Amino acid sequence: MKKELPIALSNRHIHLSKDHIEKLFGKGYELKKFKDLSQPDQYACEEKVDLVGEKNVIKGVRILGPARNHTQVEVSFADARILGINPPVRDSGDLDGSPGIKIVGPAGEVEIEKGVIAAARHIHLHTDDAERFGLKDKDRVKVRVGGERGLIFENVLARVSPKYALEMHVDIEEGNAAGAKNGQLVEIVD
Amino acid sequence: MKKELPIALSNRHIHLSKDHIEKLFGKGYELKKFKDLSQPDQYACEEKVDLVGEKNVIKGVRILGPARNHTQVEVSFADARILGINPPVRDSGDLDGSPGIKIVGPAGEVEIEKGVIAAARHIHLHTDDAERFGLKDKDRVKVRVGGERGLIFENVLARVSPKYALEMHVDIEEGNAAGAKNGQLVEIVD
Repeated sequence: MKKELPIALSNRHIHLSKDHIEKLFGKGYELKKFKDLSQPDQYACEEKVDLVGEKNVIKGVRILGPARNHTQVEVSFADARILGINPPVRDSGDLDGSPGIKIVGPAGEVEIEKGVIAAARHIHLHTDDAERFGLKDKDRVKVRVGGERGLIFENVLARVSPKYALEMHVDIEEGNAAGAKNGQLVEIVD
Repeated sequence: MKKELPIALSNRHIHLSKDHIEKLFGKGYELKKFKDLSQPDQYACEEKVDLVGEKNVIKGVRILGPARNHTQVEVSFADARILGINPPVRDSGDLDGSPGIKIVGPAGEVEIEKGVIAAARHIHLHTDDAERFGLKDKDRVKVRVGGERGLIFENVLARVSPKYALEMHVDIEEGNAAGAKNGQLVEIVD
C-alpha cells in the first residue's frame, strides 16, 4: 500500500496568546477568521502584525487562530536572516531556549522573550490514518517528494490525533527546495 | 568508500556577456574581482546590478565572472515570486524558453529575452574525483545531507571536467531546507 498524503507549504506566521492579542489589538479584541485551514478548527485570521528584528522589520505577518497558551512565531531561515535572529528547528510548542522578538500591532507592541522557531517538518495524521499506515504519535518517518526537484525528507515527525487531518507540513524553503505545490501528494517511504 | 564532498549554497547571482557588461557599466568596462570562488577561474565581482521584475525590484544582485557567452540570471523560487516571474529549473547554460528580465546597471540597462533560471542542483567533479567515485559526466546521483533537517536530494546532475573542483551546488532554499552550511560534507548515496 502506498502511504500517500498531501503536502502544505507554511509561510511565516504567528500564533498569539489571548493576553498578547489584547496588547496588540486592544482590550477584549477577538481575531476575525479569514479562512479555514486544513486542520480542523484552525484558521488564518484577517489580522497581521509586524516582526521587528535586530536587523530588519518583516511587515504583515499573518496570525493563525485560535489563540494559544503561548505566543509562537514561525519563520524560515531566510526570514531569520532578514530579522537578524537565529531560531532553532523545533516542534510546535517546544519553545524553551528559542529567541524572542518584538511584535507590533495596531494598538500596541509586545516583546516576547522566547517563541521564535523554524518549525520542524511534520505530518499530521488522524488516528485512523495512523492505524492504516502503521504509525504512532512521535514516530519519525521519511517522506519522498517526486518531480524534477525530487527529494526525501528524513526525520519527519508524525503527530497523531483524532483532531488532525492527514497532511504534511513543511516551510516555504523546504517546499520550494522540493519544487512542491500545495496539495501535491507525497509518500511516506520509511 | 564514502563518497563525500563539500556543499555550497548559491545566493541569487548573474553571469553577464561582454556586450551586456558594456551596456550596463560602460564601453570597455572590465569587471573587478571581489573574491575567488571554489571553482577554478570563477570569481565573485565587486559589481552588482538590479533585477526589475513585473512585480518588484531586487537590488544589488552579485555578478559572477568571468564574462560568459550568454547572460544568465540564477534566482530562487522565493526571488522569482518577489519578481513576478516563473523560471524553470535548468542546468547552467540551458536557457531556451526561460523568461527574460530587465537588468539595471550604473551606466545603462538591458532587457534580456531569456536567461532567468532556478539552477538545477548539481555537483562538480574533477576528472580524478569522478574516476574515484565511479561517475561520469551527466550522471544523475542522490546526495544525502545529514543533521536534524537531513534529507536526500534526488536527481542531482554530475558534471565532470579537469577544470572543476569537487563541490555540490544548491540554491539558498535547498541549502536552508537541509539545514546545510557552506563547506559541510555531504554524501553521494546512489
